[in-house]
Amino acid sequence: MKKLAVVAFGGNALLRGDQAGTIEEQEQNALDTCERLLTLINRDYNVVLTHGNGPQVGNILLANAAGNQVYNLPEMPLDICVAYSQGFIGYILEQQMRNVLRAHDLDRDVITIITQVLVDRDDPAFDNPIKPIGPYYTKEFADKMTAENGSIFREDPRGRGWRKVVASPKPLVISNQRSIERIARDGQIVIAVGGGGIPAFYVAENKLQGIDAVIDKDLASALLGGNINADKLFILTDIPKVCINYNTPQEKAIDRMSVRQAKQYLAEGHFAEGSMAPKIRAAIHFVKHTSRDAIITSAGLLGVDNGGTRISIV
Amino acid sequence: MKKLAVVAFGGNALLRGDQAGTIEEQEQNALDTCERLLTLINRDYNVVLTHGNGPQVGNILLANAAGNQVYNLPEMPLDICVAYSQGFIGYILEQQMRNVLRAHDLDRDVITIITQVLVDRDDPAFDNPIKPIGPYYTKEFADKMTAENGSIFREDPRGRGWRKVVASPKPLVISNQRSIERIARDGQIVIAVGGGGIPAFYVAENKLQGIDAVIDKDLASALLGGNINADKLFILTDIPKVCINYNTPQEKAIDRMSVRQAKQYLAEGHFAEGSMAPKIRAAIHFVKHTSRDAIITSAGLLGVDNGGTRISIV
Repeated sequence: MKKLAVVAFGGNALLRGDQAGTIEEQEQNALDTCERLLTLINRDYNVVLTHGNGPQVGNILLANAAGNQVYNLPEMPLDICVAYSQGFIGYILEQQMRNVLRAHDLDRDVITIITQVLVDRDDPAFDNPIKPIGPYYTKEFADKMTAENGSIFREDPRGRGWRKVVASPKPLVISNQRSIERIARDGQIVIAVGGGGIPAFYVAENKLQGIDAVIDKDLASALLGGNINADKLFILTDIPKVCINYNTPQEKAIDRMSVRQAKQYLAEGHFAEGSMAPKIRAAIHFVKHTSRDAIITSAGLLGVDNGGTRISIV
Repeated sequence: MKKLAVVAFGGNALLRGDQAGTIEEQEQNALDTCERLLTLINRDYNVVLTHGNGPQVGNILLANAAGNQVYNLPEMPLDICVAYSQGFIGYILEQQMRNVLRAHDLDRDVITIITQVLVDRDDPAFDNPIKPIGPYYTKEFADKMTAENGSIFREDPRGRGWRKVVASPKPLVISNQRSIERIARDGQIVIAVGGGGIPAFYVAENKLQGIDAVIDKDLASALLGGNINADKLFILTDIPKVCINYNTPQEKAIDRMSVRQAKQYLAEGHFAEGSMAPKIRAAIHFVKHTSRDAIITSAGLLGVDNGGTRISIV
């Protein structure tokens, strides 16, 4: 049986901070991203590709706010905007993946699955929303929205205005994970869990409902990888290897670490929150669950021998 | 083996003309739509659910135009907007379908697949774009856009301004149709081919690319139904049965017609273009391809004995 890999790309692999986000730019980035997968595909891996959506959902939120202002369109909540972004990013990744496979005479199919992820209504993250999303507003507007619908706003530390914050609850159940596994093991490249999944919970016995929240895409990918018994989890980032003492004279790149070491480095504060720390936690989750390795590296080193930092059970 | 049905809903089943399109309205409509499927599910059909996206993609185009005006966001072309709408509508249909199944103790899973549809670059429809999309503009703005990117605009017959028109080419290949069939025959309710699919063609040997066009969702659904050898195609509309001499004193509802009769009525102009005529053509396509029946009816009569108009091979 072929090995199965879950590969998690960041949303900025498709829209870099220095780009405006035209469709031509994003398609080219998607093509580059898909070409990075060739090494794994040539090594005969089955692949589930997951991706972030930060820059894209940011633009979708802005467009919705503008549509409300200019054309009085109804506001779309965050879960809907995540669904938009899954359709969008999944589509361009799937299209460029087909182009890459065809250019290399590889006979694999590609499929994009819209993915909801169940979270816990009582997740403590809901008591402390910290993830900023959407446009910057004036304090007056923010106060008005809070009064109207309970949205929580925080002032931007760089003085750009007030911004809505939402919770980032833990992913619990990935919908359609059985299908994702089956289709991937059948040899198709599956694109799923976009943006960490569309967060939803049961507000009543028979009422599943989306919520204004975002799920960490690396954690959702690790959960999926564990549940479908993937042989490897790749978490892609901007740097080739994880470092301790990052950005100091003592900076040291790590080739390999055990779960115990990774936890110790985490506790010692080597990894920045909102950046490397959640990736390390996601890797630990996967390794503990499967006893298999997780690899954190840059897209260019995906599937390359000794590329990146390997996190193992011991 | 269970029977397999393809059921095509209109986009207005989820956003009626008299509604603003808030998410609460659209979720409620999605719930109602999904409840209509219960009769078929209780009759033990496997189901592929397809849907239109007219009103939703209209709002997405407006929001994008506004985002460009207010925040200088890059414009998103129509294929991307269709991808947004597939993510969005698929998500809310899947979620409400899960709620309906759970409320009725039915053990079926639901999966939404983003669907590209290949069209022919040389389809004559591209010489005569007729499908209006997006906002109404002034003549000056329309002329400017035509000069900039070759978009074609037509004046609205009701004087609301100038509107972009795009082609509606014939669907040729539904991507992932093998997976759609397999998953549906495995008992999952599959949501696919949203808005008729995201239209794409090969601009070079290895370069599949999306285009500014829309595909008739009934025709795409009929093509899918034929290709996956569905036992029945249901095309849903606002009226319980197809009528000849519609809206005249001689109006007559049709219970049953052969392909030959349907073609004759079409030729005699009984069915309005942009409304019933494309549904009849889609039904004919399916019946000729499979020798099985297509049924055109309202959602309320879905799966009910003798509900709707049955189109048969003879």
